[in-house]
Amino acid sequence: MSRIAYVNGRYVPHRLARVHVEDRGFQFADAVYEVIAIRRGAFVDADRHLARLTRSRRVLAMAAPMSEAALKLVLRETARRNRVADGIVYLQVSRGAAPRDFAFPAQARPSLVVTARHMRIADPRLVAEGVAVITVPDQRWKRPDVKTVSLLPNVLAKQQAKEAGAYEAWQVDAQGNVSEGTSSNAWIVSAADEVITRQADTSILKGITRMAVFDILAREGLRPVERPFSVAEAKAAREAMLTSATNGVLPVVRIDGAPVGDGRPGPVALSLAAAYRAVMDGAA
Amino acid sequence: MSRIAYVNGRYVPHRLARVHVEDRGFQFADAVYEVIAIRRGAFVDADRHLARLTRSRRVLAMAAPMSEAALKLVLRETARRNRVADGIVYLQVSRGAAPRDFAFPAQARPSLVVTARHMRIADPRLVAEGVAVITVPDQRWKRPDVKTVSLLPNVLAKQQAKEAGAYEAWQVDAQGNVSEGTSSNAWIVSAADEVITRQADTSILKGITRMAVFDILAREGLRPVERPFSVAEAKAAREAMLTSATNGVLPVVRIDGAPVGDGRPGPVALSLAAAYRAVMDGAA
Repeated sequence: MSRIAYVNGRYVPHRLARVHVEDRGFQFADAVYEVIAIRRGAFVDADRHLARLTRSRRVLAMAAPMSEAALKLVLRETARRNRVADGIVYLQVSRGAAPRDFAFPAQARPSLVVTARHMRIADPRLVAEGVAVITVPDQRWKRPDVKTVSLLPNVLAKQQAKEAGAYEAWQVDAQGNVSEGTSSNAWIVSAADEVITRQADTSILKGITRMAVFDILAREGLRPVERPFSVAEAKAAREAMLTSATNGVLPVVRIDGAPVGDGRPGPVALSLAAAYRAVMDGAA
Repeated sequence: MSRIAYVNGRYVPHRLARVHVEDRGFQFADAVYEVIAIRRGAFVDADRHLARLTRSRRVLAMAAPMSEAALKLVLRETARRNRVADGIVYLQVSRGAAPRDFAFPAQARPSLVVTARHMRIADPRLVAEGVAVITVPDQRWKRPDVKTVSLLPNVLAKQQAKEAGAYEAWQVDAQGNVSEGTSSNAWIVSAADEVITRQADTSILKGITRMAVFDILAREGLRPVERPFSVAEAKAAREAMLTSATNGVLPVVRIDGAPVGDGRPGPVALSLAAAYRAVMDGAA
């Protein structure tokens, strides 16, 4: 079966899925996006993802390509046509195609592109083994809280991680504190068993899986500590982990080559990973 | 006559000029570009633009889509097919299309898109009147010296300028100094007749027209002072101006609504604008 993509009103074979060269997503990174996990045929936290998409659009004064109800139908139909029961749906909204000019075009219809693909969400093998991260300077623009395709610094950092044999790069701000991964939020567990992650101000993306972990902790009467933590603190932490829509909760067992704790996934990370998996399966 | 664009090996009608939705220029801002002015049928400073393109690519470890000689042929052919004698040629190179993944794809052919259009270069009316700029916080990533399509902060700043009735926005760094415009370099002339523009380190794009102005000054035995200047200093300056491939040298007569000097284009800016025009015409 060949893959199908949705592009501006039409379902087309993936290999023919194209946008105009003057689409502002291509020329200006003037586009926002979301990645939603699909688990056993159900979208995971779709409402939160779509709410974040709306916020991203509004910060950029970008119009909606269609109503949220219509968008949900397109997401479902794209997943259905690609027979994705476990995987992701990717959606990208740009300000549209218009003669190249930095300022917003007077007339342009927002572009919408949706693709879907099979993928192992929250891969149990990765959870069991844990992953390595490296730390790199955070080179991004000042608004990573807006989920835009301005991802070149993230690309460079992820490539650096890959070349170092690591799974993710943790970006470090001018104060020496970890902001977040290139496509995931960063967490540590202190010696006092505090679960710590950076506050979701304009310096990081407010992860949907991050919010789901907050919910899991809340059900046990716990609250994460929302504050910046330094690289040194992370390296000395009892545990470390990362969260994202595709990874779920993933133990981090190595930072810049040095083991975190005993170098194996810790009990808090494993417990949260299992709880998150149960939530996903319950949602299905 | 309908416009023609070059896209990955083919000359196609502009309205049909498309790239794949998984082109990394569209999904990751993983692309570099140049805008070259065409004046009386000749490219202005093509070699410098292509050298900068090569540098931008290399910083990002991005392969060349073709040799520089072949690229020049494509640029000329695109200009010719669109019968552009006065205007611009736009070229964009991305890392190519590949299944979405932050890290560089193992196999991807770089994409090349070239368009051309008529435009009045260094518009004499604008030069005679001068333009207004506003100042805004510089929200860009840490490497604006690399000419990438990570332009969303520039887009937002230019839109803000437009809404304020200004022509350009000067971006201001955390120290209160002007870095550069959204698509132009920024200059002032001090009371001591020093021509001042920011040093071309990693904080600004090293403008090709900026270099051409250096050349003009050198021919008169003059040297610009390369250092940061504050917004306050700019507002108190005798003259201000901006430079870019499409604007040439353009007097700035108003900053944040307040007149620069007597609010009219100053003699240094006008003289440099005329000299730059002569250089362009000489190149033709």
